[in-house]
Amino acid sequence: MAVDNGDFVRVNFTGKVKETDEVFDTTYDEIAQEAGLFDENKTYKPIPIVVGGNHLLPAIEEAIIGLEEGETKHIEVDSDNAFGPRDPKMVQLVPMKEFKKQGMTPFPGMRIQSEGSNGKILTVNGGRVKVDFNHELAGKDLVYDVEVTEIIADEEDKIKSMIELHYANPNVDIDKTEIDIVDGVANIKLDEMAKFDQKSYMDVTFARFRIAKDIWDNVEGITKVNFVDEFEKKEESDDEVEEE
Amino acid sequence: MAVDNGDFVRVNFTGKVKETDEVFDTTYDEIAQEAGLFDENKTYKPIPIVVGGNHLLPAIEEAIIGLEEGETKHIEVDSDNAFGPRDPKMVQLVPMKEFKKQGMTPFPGMRIQSEGSNGKILTVNGGRVKVDFNHELAGKDLVYDVEVTEIIADEEDKIKSMIELHYANPNVDIDKTEIDIVDGVANIKLDEMAKFDQKSYMDVTFARFRIAKDIWDNVEGITKVNFVDEFEKKEESDDEVEEE
Repeated sequence: MAVDNGDFVRVNFTGKVKETDEVFDTTYDEIAQEAGLFDENKTYKPIPIVVGGNHLLPAIEEAIIGLEEGETKHIEVDSDNAFGPRDPKMVQLVPMKEFKKQGMTPFPGMRIQSEGSNGKILTVNGGRVKVDFNHELAGKDLVYDVEVTEIIADEEDKIKSMIELHYANPNVDIDKTEIDIVDGVANIKLDEMAKFDQKSYMDVTFARFRIAKDIWDNVEGITKVNFVDEFEKKEESDDEVEEE
Repeated sequence: MAVDNGDFVRVNFTGKVKETDEVFDTTYDEIAQEAGLFDENKTYKPIPIVVGGNHLLPAIEEAIIGLEEGETKHIEVDSDNAFGPRDPKMVQLVPMKEFKKQGMTPFPGMRIQSEGSNGKILTVNGGRVKVDFNHELAGKDLVYDVEVTEIIADEEDKIKSMIELHYANPNVDIDKTEIDIVDGVANIKLDEMAKFDQKSYMDVTFARFRIAKDIWDNVEGITKVNFVDEFEKKEESDDEVEEE
């Protein structure tokens, strides 16, 4: 069975800058370590996506259509289909005093955040600091090696894969998720530990909305997704019963 | 119908220190204003409780048993049945430098917090500050005037009343709560706005647990409470349909 648009699949990949062969993202542990990208908070394993769901670059999701389970493909994505061209207007001169105000000493190569944008300092020249707010991969052609490790066939597994993708919480055991599909409604009961998330309820709602949307859009016949938190009375202990 | 143990009721009350007639808590707007207790973040109206549910002092919950709807009662609660005796060991001498460290200038009557305990400064004498960590009402006999404004008969209304009590969120409209009781399970769908709570999921879980427990313990036949967050696919607009 070959990968089709709307399929739920798991993929391994490594993305490199075409010109320099520099690895910028990978799902492989060893490659991350070699490239100096290894993050101990990340789990290196195939990630679940929906083909056409905008979870990876659209060009990559399109390119894997037709692959068989276990098949790999080398994909070239030019900058226009990746992170777009570099915009010279996104390179800005920032007065040194703005940095001093925040107790920062800028140096070339330093990464900063300003109003939600990420920037990289190019040069520091007297009172002026040149900052590039372009995406780091803007203007670059990329190459990806992608392996389709699994095409997910089962409806429950499709739903679980989207929970895995959007509900990143190392304390939540995906195998303890209970899913019950009745009359077009998917009822999801997450691992009990999910109830004790420190994140705000609103952030959890946004993650749930993304899960629900990927399910509606790609699982035939499901139009509603319910997240159910159960609270059940425990059996009374003998002591308590004797009291009565 | 008279109030019985385990009943869900709404009450208005005013609590005073017996000796001084000083009001320390009330559900009445005007009395709060007169007593200088008015808090604009609070809504002054009868509060829902379960009789015997430990929502008010047990002595008060006991005293209202037998009252009819609309009936009022004057209740005296001696200190042993209210906030207990004053404990001289809870009056402590704290070195002035501990206050200075935190940039505080203590004065008699000032209220402070230390490791979760509330204290009141009694005297400031040179390098030593005398702080009373006893509950403000410890050792005091109290009098309450309580009115039972409503005995809640309907099961759904009982459940809603506990949501009102434990799920304090001014953005959540209790009248938009949907409750569905099937085979001993109460399924609760809160107002859509509840999904966007800024509180942590864990705090929301604790509030839900308290609601669930009050329901199990006091609504005949219910042993499970589910909180359901629905995410439903919206009808596609004409534009989207035409695309296909």
